[in-house]
Amino acid sequence: MQVAFLLYERFTALDLVGPYEILRTLPGVEPVLVAKAVGPVGDERDELRIEARRSPAEVTGPDVLVVPGGLGSRDLLEDRELLDWIAAVHEGTEWTASVCTGALLLAAAGVLDGVEATTHWLARERLAELGARPVEGRVVRRGRVVTAAGVSAGIDMALELAALTHGRAAAEATALMVEYDPHPPVAAGDLGRAPAGLVAIARELRRRPAVVAAWARRPLAD
Amino acid sequence: MQVAFLLYERFTALDLVGPYEILRTLPGVEPVLVAKAVGPVGDERDELRIEARRSPAEVTGPDVLVVPGGLGSRDLLEDRELLDWIAAVHEGTEWTASVCTGALLLAAAGVLDGVEATTHWLARERLAELGARPVEGRVVRRGRVVTAAGVSAGIDMALELAALTHGRAAAEATALMVEYDPHPPVAAGDLGRAPAGLVAIARELRRRPAVVAAWARRPLAD
Repeated sequence: MQVAFLLYERFTALDLVGPYEILRTLPGVEPVLVAKAVGPVGDERDELRIEARRSPAEVTGPDVLVVPGGLGSRDLLEDRELLDWIAAVHEGTEWTASVCTGALLLAAAGVLDGVEATTHWLARERLAELGARPVEGRVVRRGRVVTAAGVSAGIDMALELAALTHGRAAAEATALMVEYDPHPPVAAGDLGRAPAGLVAIARELRRRPAVVAAWARRPLAD
Repeated sequence: MQVAFLLYERFTALDLVGPYEILRTLPGVEPVLVAKAVGPVGDERDELRIEARRSPAEVTGPDVLVVPGGLGSRDLLEDRELLDWIAAVHEGTEWTASVCTGALLLAAAGVLDGVEATTHWLARERLAELGARPVEGRVVRRGRVVTAAGVSAGIDMALELAALTHGRAAAEATALMVEYDPHPPVAAGDLGRAPAGLVAIARELRRRPAVVAAWARRPLAD
């Protein structure tokens, strides 16, 4: 079972590596890292660079496609060459999946036309503009398309995929091997329960990372 | 605040990228990827290769050191040059941390002599042989040393570190940005609650990945 992971400049590293770590552990899985240019691809911070091993032309029939999110996804929404590859590959996949704003790329490729899907909470409006029907949910499965919410949700998604492709025992064994028994030390990962002050801080984290050091130690407003 | 992440051949990608994604998001953090040889370093599967950007000689005073685990950790337990670097850097860190079998490297470097620590459940005996005192726990903090259990536990550990270094608001904002509100689709990530049949399957996943495809769809024995 070939699982293709798409890389592009300014991807979010955990969007990719969470699902990679789960799926590559499954028996019989061949993971392949794909990008338009073979070679190192920088993450949002451009400190972490992961090597793409193959070009899209070399990966034409993966069984599973996983598209991670990242700030760079916005730069590719009119990249017909890449979007056509996603659309073509999707025709033959068993499962097509996205994490976070990877859903924007699936939508731009036409994979999510009128389909319910999830994405990072910051990108829901953009997802709707691209023709999908954003719904709340950490992992949303419609037909053979699976979308995950922001970043860490890709791990949950990949375990769900593992159960679908390899059976529940294999998914459970993988969860045990990566000790996926999360105990978040802060319970703040869900937008629906986040106070307004926290949402404002979170937005600044991404938008102005260089100028927010000053507030780092201040308490939450509410 | 400089956060150094150690890379070595056959590291576990999620051990590194989980904490990286949390900590690099914090204001004022400069993440640096360090390995003995600058350039691409292959993960356990050697499909995913992450570029090391600096040599140990170039990183002498990080504020935080994070050592991921991986099958390759066993190959470095007598690598005096690397272990001496870990020991020297640890003298000056605010926090020294490991994920999974990264604890073996901390122990071999003398950082965990007589210190309570956690690691992957498969490596507890080895950790004891190296002078640490293995205890159960997903994240174990003793003084300024923090160890995490297997693979995914690094995310919980990094959020705890984030709260310690940047305050609770910043940790919560980061959790919200990466939507860390986990809902595992299978509840099998904790060894203490895993049935024996599942443990056997999990061991095979790592030991004989090439020959276990046949059992993938079989149900659990118990």
